Amino acid sequence: MSSPPHSAPRATPGQAQEIKVQAAVNAPRIAIESVQPSLDHGRFAAKAIVDEPVHVRATIFADGHDILAAAVCWYDDEGRQHREPMCQIQPPGLDRWEGRFSPRRVGRHGFFIEAWWDTYATYRDELSKKHQAGVPVGLELEEGRRLLVQAIERSEGALKDAFKALHGRFQWLDHDAERVALLLDGDTVQLMHEANTRPHLTRSDVFYPLEVERLKARFSSWYELFPRSETDDPHRHGTFKDVHKRLPMIRDMGFDVLYFPPIHPVGHTHRKGPNNSLEAGPDDPGSPYAIGSKEGGHEAIHPQLGTRDDFRHLVRSAADHGMEIALDFAIQCSPDHPWLKEHPGWFSWRPDGSIRYAENPPKKYQDIVNVDFYSEDAIPSLWMTLRDVVQGWVDEGVKIFRVDNPHTKPLPFWEWLIADIRGRDPSVIFLAEAFTRPAMMLRLGKLGFNQSYTYFTWRHTKAELTAYFTQLNEPPLRDGYRPNFFVNTPDINPYFLQSSGRPGFLIRAALATMGAGSWGMYSGFELCEGAPVPSKEEYLDSEKYEIRPRDYTASGNIRYEITQLNRIRRENPALQTHLGLAFYTVHNDHILLFGKRTETQHNFILVAVNLDPFEAQEGVFELPLWEFDLPEDAPLHAEDLMSGQHWTWHGKWQSLHLEPWHQPFAIWRIRPVH
Amino acid sequence: MSSPPHSAPRATPGQAQEIKVQAAVNAPRIAIESVQPSLDHGRFAAKAIVDEPVHVRATIFADGHDILAAAVCWYDDEGRQHREPMCQIQPPGLDRWEGRFSPRRVGRHGFFIEAWWDTYATYRDELSKKHQAGVPVGLELEEGRRLLVQAIERSEGALKDAFKALHGRFQWLDHDAERVALLLDGDTVQLMHEANTRPHLTRSDVFYPLEVERLKARFSSWYELFPRSETDDPHRHGTFKDVHKRLPMIRDMGFDVLYFPPIHPVGHTHRKGPNNSLEAGPDDPGSPYAIGSKEGGHEAIHPQLGTRDDFRHLVRSAADHGMEIALDFAIQCSPDHPWLKEHPGWFSWRPDGSIRYAENPPKKYQDIVNVDFYSEDAIPSLWMTLRDVVQGWVDEGVKIFRVDNPHTKPLPFWEWLIADIRGRDPSVIFLAEAFTRPAMMLRLGKLGFNQSYTYFTWRHTKAELTAYFTQLNEPPLRDGYRPNFFVNTPDINPYFLQSSGRPGFLIRAALATMGAGSWGMYSGFELCEGAPVPSKEEYLDSEKYEIRPRDYTASGNIRYEITQLNRIRRENPALQTHLGLAFYTVHNDHILLFGKRTETQHNFILVAVNLDPFEAQEGVFELPLWEFDLPEDAPLHAEDLMSGQHWTWHGKWQSLHLEPWHQPFAIWRIRPVH
Repeated sequence: MSSPPHSAPRATPGQAQEIKVQAAVNAPRIAIESVQPSLDHGRFAAKAIVDEPVHVRATIFADGHDILAAAVCWYDDEGRQHREPMCQIQPPGLDRWEGRFSPRRVGRHGFFIEAWWDTYATYRDELSKKHQAGVPVGLELEEGRRLLVQAIERSEGALKDAFKALHGRFQWLDHDAERVALLLDGDTVQLMHEANTRPHLTRSDVFYPLEVERLKARFSSWYELFPRSETDDPHRHGTFKDVHKRLPMIRDMGFDVLYFPPIHPVGHTHRKGPNNSLEAGPDDPGSPYAIGSKEGGHEAIHPQLGTRDDFRHLVRSAADHGMEIALDFAIQCSPDHPWLKEHPGWFSWRPDGSIRYAENPPKKYQDIVNVDFYSEDAIPSLWMTLRDVVQGWVDEGVKIFRVDNPHTKPLPFWEWLIADIRGRDPSVIFLAEAFTRPAMMLRLGKLGFNQSYTYFTWRHTKAELTAYFTQLNEPPLRDGYRPNFFVNTPDINPYFLQSSGRPGFLIRAALATMGAGSWGMYSGFELCEGAPVPSKEEYLDSEKYEIRPRDYTASGNIRYEITQLNRIRRENPALQTHLGLAFYTVHNDHILLFGKRTETQHNFILVAVNLDPFEAQEGVFELPLWEFDLPEDAPLHAEDLMSGQHWTWHGKWQSLHLEPWHQPFAIWRIRPVH
Repeated sequence: MSSPPHSAPRATPGQAQEIKVQAAVNAPRIAIESVQPSLDHGRFAAKAIVDEPVHVRATIFADGHDILAAAVCWYDDEGRQHREPMCQIQPPGLDRWEGRFSPRRVGRHGFFIEAWWDTYATYRDELSKKHQAGVPVGLELEEGRRLLVQAIERSEGALKDAFKALHGRFQWLDHDAERVALLLDGDTVQLMHEANTRPHLTRSDVFYPLEVERLKARFSSWYELFPRSETDDPHRHGTFKDVHKRLPMIRDMGFDVLYFPPIHPVGHTHRKGPNNSLEAGPDDPGSPYAIGSKEGGHEAIHPQLGTRDDFRHLVRSAADHGMEIALDFAIQCSPDHPWLKEHPGWFSWRPDGSIRYAENPPKKYQDIVNVDFYSEDAIPSLWMTLRDVVQGWVDEGVKIFRVDNPHTKPLPFWEWLIADIRGRDPSVIFLAEAFTRPAMMLRLGKLGFNQSYTYFTWRHTKAELTAYFTQLNEPPLRDGYRPNFFVNTPDINPYFLQSSGRPGFLIRAALATMGAGSWGMYSGFELCEGAPVPSKEEYLDSEKYEIRPRDYTASGNIRYEITQLNRIRRENPALQTHLGLAFYTVHNDHILLFGKRTETQHNFILVAVNLDPFEAQEGVFELPLWEFDLPEDAPLHAEDLMSGQHWTWHGKWQSLHLEPWHQPFAIWRIRPVH
């Protein structure tokens, strides 16, 4: 916090005047404003992906009409400084400048901006204009000569010699036109650039941190399953070895992250029974989120899932299949968790010796109690222990964590924990499972969460989806928040899918896979499961409380379509991010039409989705010819990425027909006809 | 600038871990974001007006579901701290809070925000809900009792006694319902509030400065004249005494600022002749912007205007008429300015002993040279001298300065100069005469200019005016930039007025007076003068180079309408600012309809302007009944502020007809029918 006024010792009036005018004279002459990417004026790190260009933009201007120059100075994760020039972008009236660099390593980077008077550019500009206008330039040439003399005076070694030679040539030239040519010559400009004193050098008043992450932080396809359900008998607890057998099927659908709810021992006290009932039978497995029993806590593996070696084997085997295992980090305890006895000071005890059970209104978790991060005994031992839990799993080869309800744990805890873990291994990725208010959702991203659950699950109409996708593409979300579009979760059986039938599942799969770089599904989605607890967003007979074997080859499944969608994502870089999105006109409120493109336009995907799972919809739509600088009558080449068909569209307005029963969406790769 | 990474000495790994977790534990638990009013994260002071409420808003939230409390802590210009509570505003999902305070003094103020855990509010909320739901609350009551005991322990004196008494009463109550009532009682809440330890107290990480200004900084009506033209003979130079005779007429039109272009001696070298010609005749007065001759510079008065005593008399006399004199501060010199000889080091001399003349592309000022603020000799003597020039006129009673082309002088110079002058006398007002790029326009406001020239002069269509007025009402312009809508200036003879005839002058007068708190006109406007230099925005026979006597009673003048418009502004606080503006629907693209209102709705003005100076326009328009929470069929009382007529409108859709020849606008004060 800055000081309040008058808190500093006062100088005498005369001293104060002198100090203030000196401060003003030395103050930066150039304004550097509205720097992007940035979050809260450099308080948090903006997000970047390794080997992809970072576009740094700023509004840069000063008094008068002299020409400025600017550069972005960036530091990599080892503190090495690099520098890239910035250029003014169109239109010049906005005083907007851009510089680009591509970080080659993951981890914490950062940048600031420098701008200065480009004295020689201003001089060249005037000389060139006057010379071209036929105005006498004798005086300007003498000024140019003096610039050369000054350059000799302030340079050394080879540069000094080069300027001496240049000045010598200049003196021997007979005609003004030759002298003008020499001063405007590229070599002269280059020499002047090297000898530049950068007058009025100004630095942005903030150092902007940048967190560089691996591509999977933004492009990932998640498959969620309960390992204990990998069985064909609801009375036999599935194991890691059973999961091992499913790997080829999941890999074949195109997923690259396999995510498990907590794999730790499950508590017995207040264990939940089927459908969240408060009484569990002797064979009920309980919610895996009620972590901890006498068999261990967050660092332990549920004995019925297998051994630590089984887990290690599964991690390696998944890697062989091109997949990573993601674990759940849920900071909560069953009343049987060893920490309650070992560290009673980590909990808030009530007068009757009980601990308040957990709530995430309106949900109640009678089988779970929470730690108290700020109790005297918890500082810092609880914080360190939780960090060690995560580090322990990282050491087992787990590099992706889905964090349960992070918005109910302290914000400084996450900022510290993520920086600590990623400080040692910046390949680790954290997904925030927060469904809460917008400011908190973004803040978690700012604190370091690499991906986040979103409101996608509750956005269905054309207007809702357009507004939400647009918001994700704009600051501040653009710089600080990476969406992972989950189509369902064990906690969310979306109302839309409860009644939409198979077409609805195809619609949501298409929107999720095409809309965001990361998406996820919870098993059963591919079977179009949607039976609810009546009038709730909960699954009937929820797998959270039961072992649920499934026949993944059952008829009506959408594994083929999911496989195709994931393949299309892998083959088209434009689909590996939620950014670079634009909506286009289609004259039907049930059809959403949007484009995704890479910066260079080399990869341009057009997606049309019929949002109505019950009726066929058709409409006239606008081909975005202008995105390729094409006239309205230009032909455009299109490839249907689902069917592989090719054709050429002629004319800006085209029509489409999408019926929900077969395939309620279309995905085209478009390009100009060569 | 923050440090680049790794610049600090490194701790050992163990130390570093301990330091980091302790920092995290001590870090603010509550997020305080998006604070308004603010400019560039507290780098610049937002603008406020004395005795008017400042609405401080912030997004405030934390982990979990506990209830928070917040306050705005503000400092007045003498460093006294005050505190106002903040409340959450609707809808709660935005986590947006507001607190208000009204500064009672002009000068530099500032504020920061505090938020903390309101533990007792959280407790009361739970107790009350459970009690109302009929759930047993024995455990909660024991927790409440312990809160009382803790309060006894941490308080002293009378407060401690009060808690002891409260605890005693609590112990003696027989029934839980009575105990609940006691704990929820207002007196208990008040006591708990007084004993609050404010757990997790978090302060905004920035101190937000606020510049409190007098009302005239935002609400002023400017009349500009060349004193030398106050004559009936173009060969007789007008004087301050002549201006004195005009005061009643200008006062009667309702102006409260009388502004003169520079009143200093005019140079002779390269003096401009009529119509900006490069050769002046012996009797040509020259441009007053070519400041300085052997008779003196910026501190001197042109001898032909009168003596210093004449000027002092005029300042006093204007004040007696309710007007302030505004002077021009134009930092530039005629080649004859005494500074060229006294301080040659303040200028950049070319190899031939000349100084480059001034340009503001495409304009060329061959009769003017500029100082070099960063030349060795100029630091800090030039800066101090310029400050002394302004202070000298302040000492003569001039409290308003129109600053010529501030965007061509260094930004730090203005920030220092304005702070220096206003530090001694915060009633001084600076108007920035910058017509340049948007970022610079705003920056000058941020640096301290209290008012600014605008793009209004070039906004004519409904779409242009709607976009521009809206932009002025939104951040960042809302907090940092106060428009002064000049309808014309000696430099700008708007194309629109060159051909619109009298109706065009009425249209622009209505838009300027109703659109902004400050507006201005240059004399001749009331006579509908618009003869241009062909195809230029310049006046033919411009007064900048000639003495121009006028007959201000000439037929066709619009003095009556201007008088009425200024009267309406004085009588209606909603019109004393550009803020509080909203546009309403009228089904005609030539008619602009907008409302201006005070915060309380007590003053609500509806303005309709026919933007077409050639044709009558009519249209159906929408009465903004919803702004008064009225149903669509409610009656609304209207008063025509130009004619004084009253009536009642019935129904939401009304129609209007505006013909340009008589009065191309309508101004209604509206209110619900009582």
